[in-house]
Amino acid sequence: MTETGEDILVRAHPEESQEDVYAEDGSIRTDFRAMVGAAIADRDLLFLRQHVARLHESELGDLIEALQPDQRIALVLLLGDDFDLTALTEVDEAIRLQIVEHLPNAQIAAAIGDLDSDDAVYILEDLDHEDREEILAQLPFTERVRLRRALDYPESSAGRRMQTEFVAVPPFWTVGQTIDYMRDEEGLPETFTQIFVIDPTFKLLGTVDLDRILRTKRQVKIETIMRETSHPIPAEMDQEEAAQLFEQYDLLSAAVVDENERLVGVLTIDDVVDVIQEEAEEDLMRLGGVGDEELSDSIRETSRSRIPWLLVNLLTAFLAASVISLFEATIQEIVALAVLMPIVAGMGGNAGSQTMTVSVRALATRDLDIHNAWRVVRREAGVGLLNGMVFGVLIGVIAGFWFHDVNIGGIIATAMLINMFAAAVAGILIPLLLDKVGADPAVSSAVFVTAVTDITGFFAFLGLATWWFTLH
Amino acid sequence: MTETGEDILVRAHPEESQEDVYAEDGSIRTDFRAMVGAAIADRDLLFLRQHVARLHESELGDLIEALQPDQRIALVLLLGDDFDLTALTEVDEAIRLQIVEHLPNAQIAAAIGDLDSDDAVYILEDLDHEDREEILAQLPFTERVRLRRALDYPESSAGRRMQTEFVAVPPFWTVGQTIDYMRDEEGLPETFTQIFVIDPTFKLLGTVDLDRILRTKRQVKIETIMRETSHPIPAEMDQEEAAQLFEQYDLLSAAVVDENERLVGVLTIDDVVDVIQEEAEEDLMRLGGVGDEELSDSIRETSRSRIPWLLVNLLTAFLAASVISLFEATIQEIVALAVLMPIVAGMGGNAGSQTMTVSVRALATRDLDIHNAWRVVRREAGVGLLNGMVFGVLIGVIAGFWFHDVNIGGIIATAMLINMFAAAVAGILIPLLLDKVGADPAVSSAVFVTAVTDITGFFAFLGLATWWFTLH
Repeated sequence: MTETGEDILVRAHPEESQEDVYAEDGSIRTDFRAMVGAAIADRDLLFLRQHVARLHESELGDLIEALQPDQRIALVLLLGDDFDLTALTEVDEAIRLQIVEHLPNAQIAAAIGDLDSDDAVYILEDLDHEDREEILAQLPFTERVRLRRALDYPESSAGRRMQTEFVAVPPFWTVGQTIDYMRDEEGLPETFTQIFVIDPTFKLLGTVDLDRILRTKRQVKIETIMRETSHPIPAEMDQEEAAQLFEQYDLLSAAVVDENERLVGVLTIDDVVDVIQEEAEEDLMRLGGVGDEELSDSIRETSRSRIPWLLVNLLTAFLAASVISLFEATIQEIVALAVLMPIVAGMGGNAGSQTMTVSVRALATRDLDIHNAWRVVRREAGVGLLNGMVFGVLIGVIAGFWFHDVNIGGIIATAMLINMFAAAVAGILIPLLLDKVGADPAVSSAVFVTAVTDITGFFAFLGLATWWFTLH
Repeated sequence: MTETGEDILVRAHPEESQEDVYAEDGSIRTDFRAMVGAAIADRDLLFLRQHVARLHESELGDLIEALQPDQRIALVLLLGDDFDLTALTEVDEAIRLQIVEHLPNAQIAAAIGDLDSDDAVYILEDLDHEDREEILAQLPFTERVRLRRALDYPESSAGRRMQTEFVAVPPFWTVGQTIDYMRDEEGLPETFTQIFVIDPTFKLLGTVDLDRILRTKRQVKIETIMRETSHPIPAEMDQEEAAQLFEQYDLLSAAVVDENERLVGVLTIDDVVDVIQEEAEEDLMRLGGVGDEELSDSIRETSRSRIPWLLVNLLTAFLAASVISLFEATIQEIVALAVLMPIVAGMGGNAGSQTMTVSVRALATRDLDIHNAWRVVRREAGVGLLNGMVFGVLIGVIAGFWFHDVNIGGIIATAMLINMFAAAVAGILIPLLLDKVGADPAVSSAVFVTAVTDITGFFAFLGLATWWFTLH
């Protein structure tokens, strides 16, 4: 299977390269990396132009990431104008910044003219103000205006991600005129799947998919085949919201309009795929208590970014510890309690994180909403009770035998039932509540759920034990 | 902002519906759901045809999910041939099965003829063998052969997800001939963005994007503008692998070929977006210890699917408890240890899960590979040491003051340092190791990492305490 996959990659770019740059596990082949490294050291331009410059942008990006930091910069400088700047959109932000900082602004300006505007913006937006202005100043007027317009839109907005090159025609043109225009016009975008219909003020009137044009007779007017239903996306719209429209309506591209409904750009599915990917990744990272860190971040950066979450958890941990300290006397008498109490808290934590994971994800995909919230809460409560009984009995029997004490078995069984029920209810209600008040459930649910399961677990187990053993 | 978003949805389907079916939070509007419910109860076909049947498939899917189970079936039966079966590809599997089971096979067969083959397969693949065969038997011959071919490919393969409708032309045709063919041919796919070039045996020769055709003069031969670089995807290839090719090379669609390199279908980006979405979701669910469950699953199903993970965690919990039991004597003497020990284990667990989340995600996106593994391991070890010192000191001071005992402060500080270092190393090495031996790091990393942090935490803290206090 993997071999077939590799074959494809080889055949895939006969005009770009015959290199098979990937090993079986999808990483850059070690010997290829070594050859490139040697060529960089030898300043072997012939090899680099033939085997590196011709790689697909994403392959080149992977290669750059696999190289040593100083090799990366040397490679880009050696290739000069032969280096496809698009590859930089495929690498970690830290690596991109490091390379761009070492490139002369003139080289960036020369290269950026060849890029699609969305790729150009992607590289420009990370630069500091001064460098960015210097580069923009070296670009032709129309190009500069376009890029500046995209850069003026807020970060993570549709306007930032859009491509400002598009094909637009007036409604009274015929299909024949439109095709002739496309045959003659030099400045068309590199690829496109639909064309837009606009009035003289650039106001968006409709959209025509290319297959529609190809099926239609030459004399037919564009306005008769255009669809008004083009999901125009306001440039200010958050990219995540735009991505949801793409997903919901299976769009390949969509017009981006300004506040006056004038066409300013086009958002394409390949950028949206990246957004979808990032959003799913964000939820996962947040649930795991990490932010936007990247693999190329330094120890200091990483450490600092992870400390806040650990600090919040520390509060929870001390809260739980103070619950335990209420029962010091009981523990001193029956040390078995100290041995067993982490089981009650830990299993509750696991059950709670199961429920929480499902809830957070369902909220993110909008599968969980007011129509089924109550039903899902009841289901989770039911699951909590059922699994609480299963594990209560199981742990109760084991603990009873371990400490030869049927009382301890009964106490831990009851505590388990209580805590797994609490875990389930907290696992669903906390994300729902956070979502309701407008907070991101992925960021903060875990801390609250752990707090509930730790405190309930210790309190139920130690409390029950204290009550039972003072009674008898 | 949300209002703007709603405006779009309204304007988006003027020919389909003027309904604004979504509330601000993205869920189906409650009053719309109530109106639909009333119309179903009154068998008000006029309302249903006008306001429900015309919804976009994904809106209809959302509406179905928001209805009561009996309302769902009543709606589909009432609408009959007016019901767009594609909407069923947008709902939970359990809901889809429930509806399909209540539909007469004849109605399904009639409706499936109108679907794209990939949607048809999506619905057919969940049915039991008998129903599926009965429905297939009622379809026209070519349709039946196509669907059966797709269904014969393994689940989650590219062949299962492909669309069997495509446009293919011989290499010696001119652009003009090709356009004329598309103008006259009735049986073209509903939408397409590229056409394929094949020889008389259906062997794939190349691909031409539609924009390329539109830019080219009529007399030019197709073979001169086709690209050989079409990333043909073997039908047997896993859909996840295919999705990676789409992502890497920003494909909109790709040819699917059989073992003889004959064109059998086309995989499109909208299906791939779903795969990407599912894969990211899978990792998140697995890290959280839940499987492929859906919100519509019953309490029993959910409970059963979650028990295995809890059982494995139970083993870990007892292992940790048995470590504590080694130090019963020390705990009996100094109960403060029982109070503080969950802090050491818990904070280690949190730090470990941070590292693990980053590692699992980076492995899934192939950002972490042999070229940077060693660097990332060193970074994580460094972060573990640094944060271990930060939190060691912090917790040591608090604990020292709390129990008025500088010894306890020193002991917990040292234990924290040890455990956070162990957590970091386990958090990166365990996923790497699991990946190396071919296991899915998302499924099993959490259990192992927790085992390490619990056991190390308890052992380091209680062990150090025992050693220190026996010494003094």
